[in-house]
Order: sequence, then C-alpha cells, then structure tokens
Amino acid sequence: MIESCRAAGREVFVLALDGEADRDVVETVPHAWCRIGGAATGLDLLRANAVGELVLAGAVRRPSLRSLRPDWRAAKFLARVGYRALGDDGLLSAVVKELEREGFRVIGADQLLDEAALPEGPLGQIRPGPDAAADIAHGARLARAIGALDVGQAVVVQQGLVLGVEAIEGTDGLLRRCAALRRDGPGGVLVKVEKPGQERRADRPVIGPQTVVLAAESGLCGIAAEAGATLVIDRAEVIRLADAAGLFVVGIRPP
Amino acid sequence: MIESCRAAGREVFVLALDGEADRDVVETVPHAWCRIGGAATGLDLLRANAVGELVLAGAVRRPSLRSLRPDWRAAKFLARVGYRALGDDGLLSAVVKELEREGFRVIGADQLLDEAALPEGPLGQIRPGPDAAADIAHGARLARAIGALDVGQAVVVQQGLVLGVEAIEGTDGLLRRCAALRRDGPGGVLVKVEKPGQERRADRPVIGPQTVVLAAESGLCGIAAEAGATLVIDRAEVIRLADAAGLFVVGIRPP
Repeated sequence: MIESCRAAGREVFVLALDGEADRDVVETVPHAWCRIGGAATGLDLLRANAVGELVLAGAVRRPSLRSLRPDWRAAKFLARVGYRALGDDGLLSAVVKELEREGFRVIGADQLLDEAALPEGPLGQIRPGPDAAADIAHGARLARAIGALDVGQAVVVQQGLVLGVEAIEGTDGLLRRCAALRRDGPGGVLVKVEKPGQERRADRPVIGPQTVVLAAESGLCGIAAEAGATLVIDRAEVIRLADAAGLFVVGIRPP
Repeated sequence: MIESCRAAGREVFVLALDGEADRDVVETVPHAWCRIGGAATGLDLLRANAVGELVLAGAVRRPSLRSLRPDWRAAKFLARVGYRALGDDGLLSAVVKELEREGFRVIGADQLLDEAALPEGPLGQIRPGPDAAADIAHGARLARAIGALDVGQAVVVQQGLVLGVEAIEGTDGLLRRCAALRRDGPGGVLVKVEKPGQERRADRPVIGPQTVVLAAESGLCGIAAEAGATLVIDRAEVIRLADAAGLFVVGIRPP
C-alpha cells in the first residue's frame, strides 16, 4: 500500500498500532506509534501530520476490553457504541463513522492498490470439478449465514462436511486447523464471502499468497471467494502458487 | 450405558463400529463389530441377536463418502437421503428414521442413563457473574443460529468476542484451540445448545468431566448449556471438578 501511494505521488504517513504493525515496513516511511486504546494520541498524531485521507490497512488482533486500556477518547467512543455487543464488522463500521465524524475521509484499500477485486471465474489454470462446485455452493450459503451473525467470513467444506467455521482465529488459523480435520478422499474448499452489509473500507475479504500456501498445506483442492468483494493481494504470485500446487482460485457470486 | 442396562435387568447386545467403539468396553458384553458403511451386515447382526430396542451411543467421527465405503444397503439409504446435502443432525435424523422403518424402536440415551438432563441454574458452587452472564446471552443467541445451519452446537465467547465456533472438530476440539485464542482479562464461556428441531435420540448436547477439564485448561470461567436438552455424564464428577477449578456449570434457557 505504501508503494502504491508513492507510485501515485501521494504523501504517506503511517499511524502504526503497537504490537500489530510490522516495524520493518513502517520504518521506511514517516510514521508514529500508538496504542490501540490511545485514541486521543492517535487523532492528535494524524492532525499534527496533516492527514486528510485515511486507509485502514492490515490485520488487527481484536483485543479484549481490558487489554485495550482505552484512554478518555476511546472510552467515550466505546461507551457510546457498546464494545461488547458489536461483532468485528459492527465495531469497524463504528470506527469508520467516528473517524469521518472527526473530519477524515476514510477510503477503501482497493482504491489505493493496483490489485483489482477478484473477478468472477477461475484466476489460474485450475477449475473446480463438480464435487468442488457442490462444496462451494454449500459453503457459500453457510458462510453468508455465518457472516450475517458477524462472526466470520470463511468456512471450509469437504464433500458436504463442514470442517471448520472462521471466528476470531482468522482465515489462516482456520486453514491451519483444517489439516487435521480433513477426511479421506478428495477435496476440501475454502469459501470466503463478504458479510451482508459489510463495511468495505474497514475489513474486506482478502486472499493472498499465504492463503494459497496454507490451503495447499491443509490438503484442500481450492479457494472460492466472493467476486467483486474480495481483494487479491499479489495476484501474480497467487496464480503462480495455485497453479504450481494444483489448486483452483475462483471468484463466485454467493446467493 | 451398559451398566445402566444391567442394573435395570435389560439384556445388552452391542453393535460396535470399527475404529470408533472402545474395545475394552465392548468386550465385557455380547457384541459384534461392523464397518460404519456395512449397513446390511449391521442390520443382520441386530436381527440375529434379537435386538428390539436400539440406543445410539458414543461419538462417531463422521466419515467422508469415500472412507465410508457403503455396502449396497448403505448406498441405497445414502442415495435416497443425499449424504452430502445433510448436516450431522439431518443425517442422524435420517438414520433414526431408517432404523425405525426396519422395525427397531430407537430410544434416547437419557431413557437408559441415571443421569438426568441438566437442570436450569448452577450445578455446583460457582455462579456466573454479570460479565459471564452477558457472554452467555450473546453465545446462546449465536449458538442457536449456528445450530439452525446444522453446523455445530457450541461457541466460546469472551467479553463479547467469539473465540470459536464448533464444526466437525467437536466441543473438545473447540475448547483445545480456544486456549491460544483467549484475550487478556477475565472470562471466556463455553455455550452449548440444542440445534433447533434436533433429533434428540441421536445427538443430544452432552457435557461431562472432560468438558470441565478442557474448559479449565483453556482458561475459561464456565460452561453454560441448554437446560432440559443437555445430558450430563457423571454429574458428581462434573460438579467436583468444576468446583475445584472455580468454574461454573449452569443450565440455561436459550432464546
């Protein structure tokens, strides 16, 4: 994202979250560090560095209220929105609204990245067979329903069996544990879709080279993700790895 | 269950599933072994041993269609019900109906066991505090919705965060992985409820000493399960272990 901004001639300032952002990446550009619960400091830093447009980027491990240690500004926000009652998407939507209320323009990562959204159909050489297509259809229906509960975006289905449902462990964690849960026989598909009404500027479905590597290591036969909604990180590498491993990566339109 | 039958003066014959049943347990009573896909053999064995009433007992790892290797009788059944399209409860309901169609009376495990269903309210000394009560309410709503998809019966919630959703790994597997997913701070509750319309004779929610041990090892503060619907295995030991570990075990009425 930093590279895309530079290529587009945008000035970049990174507000890096303690314990979450990658130090090596951040130190190449103007930046400052901030606790996730330090909202007042964070807002001051953004203003002091003349930030007008904001992108929320990278995965953040959602903390418990205690480990968040909110400052007065964060506490005011959390009391108003009700931290405990919100799922991830509910919370991130509230964060986006709050940042806009503070005068920032929040834009989606896809507006900055060269990578377009996942198109409909297969991305590489491999296409899902009829068995995989049935698992994709079943998984897409389930993932959408579980997304509606604001729990997770992804499921793994093999021959009609639901091997796993994503919650706070994330898609990588889901894929890792599915290695031990696979049954004999072919297949196993990761299906990832957008939550209904999801705040796209905060938490779009993402797949990337790591997703392909973990899916292959877990013995799955492919990845199906929502076309249009899903961001593909490093598309060329995703295609190369998927073709090499014999996995399909396909953009789908869930029900 | 064998002991309960003996105490009640019932004759016992165990049809043990290859790779699933515990050899040491089975060898103490009249029994025969059968592949899970060997339906014709299984039905013949039940008839040859004059079985009239059947109880489905113990956990069975649901196989893929390939590893099931159905015989002609199982294949006929599976073709009719559609193995791939059914969740666990859908499949088990179909199995119960099929056994009844073959002339057996299928009865629930609770009719044979001394252990009654979990009553409403706390089972041991410990009661959920207000934080845990909020997590229980959130978890019960989610678990019911996920149960309606016929995926799993259980979720783990900590301070409003959904640490995990049960799928094919089962409740023990869910608890094991939640150890690494807990956030700082108190709490974490296992919430387990019946799937809406669940076939109780085949797959009731169950908790037992193992559930308490794993919940304690994962740092949870308690277990909430659906009153009336949940079977408690070895209640005295559940209470002893929960009190010793400072965990609550509470029967709830989900929405």
